[in-house]
Amino acid sequence: MIQHVFTIKTPGRQLINITREITNFVKNAKIATGLCNIFLHHTSASLIICENSDITVQEDLENFMKRLAPDSSSQYAHSVEGPDDMPSHIRSVLTSNSISVPITNHQLALGTWQGIYVWEHRLASHERKITATIIGEI
Amino acid sequence: MIQHVFTIKTPGRQLINITREITNFVKNAKIATGLCNIFLHHTSASLIICENSDITVQEDLENFMKRLAPDSSSQYAHSVEGPDDMPSHIRSVLTSNSISVPITNHQLALGTWQGIYVWEHRLASHERKITATIIGEI
Amino acid sequence: MIQHVFTIKTPGRQLINITREITNFVKNAKIATGLCNIFLHHTSASLIICENSDITVQEDLENFMKRLAPDSSSQYAHSVEGPDDMPSHIRSVLTSNSISVPITNHQLALGTWQGIYVWEHRLASHERKITATIIGEI
Repeated sequence: MIQHVFTIKTPGRQLINITREITNFVKNAKIATGLCNIFLHHTSASLIICENSDITVQEDLENFMKRLAPDSSSQYAHSVEGPDDMPSHIRSVLTSNSISVPITNHQLALGTWQGIYVWEHRLASHERKITATIIGEI
Repeated sequence: MIQHVFTIKTPGRQLINITREITNFVKNAKIATGLCNIFLHHTSASLIICENSDITVQEDLENFMKRLAPDSSSQYAHSVEGPDDMPSHIRSVLTSNSISVPITNHQLALGTWQGIYVWEHRLASHERKITATIIGEI
Repeated sequence: MIQHVFTIKTPGRQLINITREITNFVKNAKIATGLCNIFLHHTSASLIICENSDITVQEDLENFMKRLAPDSSSQYAHSVEGPDDMPSHIRSVLTSNSISVPITNHQLALGTWQGIYVWEHRLASHERKITATIIGEI
């Protein structure tokens, strides 16, 4: 059982690739076979697995979500922190904040085109906490 | 490996906060570091992590889902159990029914604003079964 | 820790029931209590838990997603592989590609109406890789 806390400073609404941080953590753990769980401790950002090659996928995802849950102060009862507040919670509930990925042959067994991303939904920069937990055998 | 089955009687379509049940289960398990998986055995309700402070977030979530997948008997082929039948399956597929949360220092390591909720999607009251499984070390 | 790789040949856009493969894998593992994680190594298909009894649920889900994220070459910046390319990534992000299910009394503890499905989002046939990982005790 190996656990590590990562802190990611996001620049505001955007996808941030954290694949390298997680694959390095797994490599150093010396676990041959197992699972790595990644957990985001927030309700206005997400943790997703996304295509890692063409940056326009990220633009299309962002535009899709803007249409699906538009920023608005009048459409939602909860808008204390601004028009991007409630849409961020909706985006978080529609995606994920806990992902488990297998470890095989000492490596995080992501598919060729899979990357792990923090999706910051708030417009402003935020500090986001992530806990990665490895369960497995040497 | 510690496993416990919870049964929740829901009052019909609504978010039900089960954070206390899960945090107590983890506290009693005497596990220092690990993971707690929570699994809902149904396809017309969800298990989500949601903002735990402002109750209007729950109203906004419910209204968002009503617009996204409206109750209807004519829009769906599957409506045996009524107009809320198929939308409930859609809501379940768009959200989650299995969540893993890290255990750190003997506690469920939720973020400050994170609560764990059963989201009942059916209009009528239902009995919902949840299995919580803890993996970790003392 | 028992791990197995499954390869599924999908016939194009469709839900494919893989419940039997996973329940058999768990049965043969001789684990009394634990967790089985199922992970799909792709970003244009999903792994979901869905109602397993009425086939029209699958049609309704498919029609819902077609309305929500329509196939289009003009609506998305990313359309290298055709009009079904970007919608497939969106569908994948909105659903799931990693699911953990409890093991209880040597069996995968799915609910009565729960089945595990690969949801192929691309129009063409694809070979999809899934890794199942069991953690538990005899």
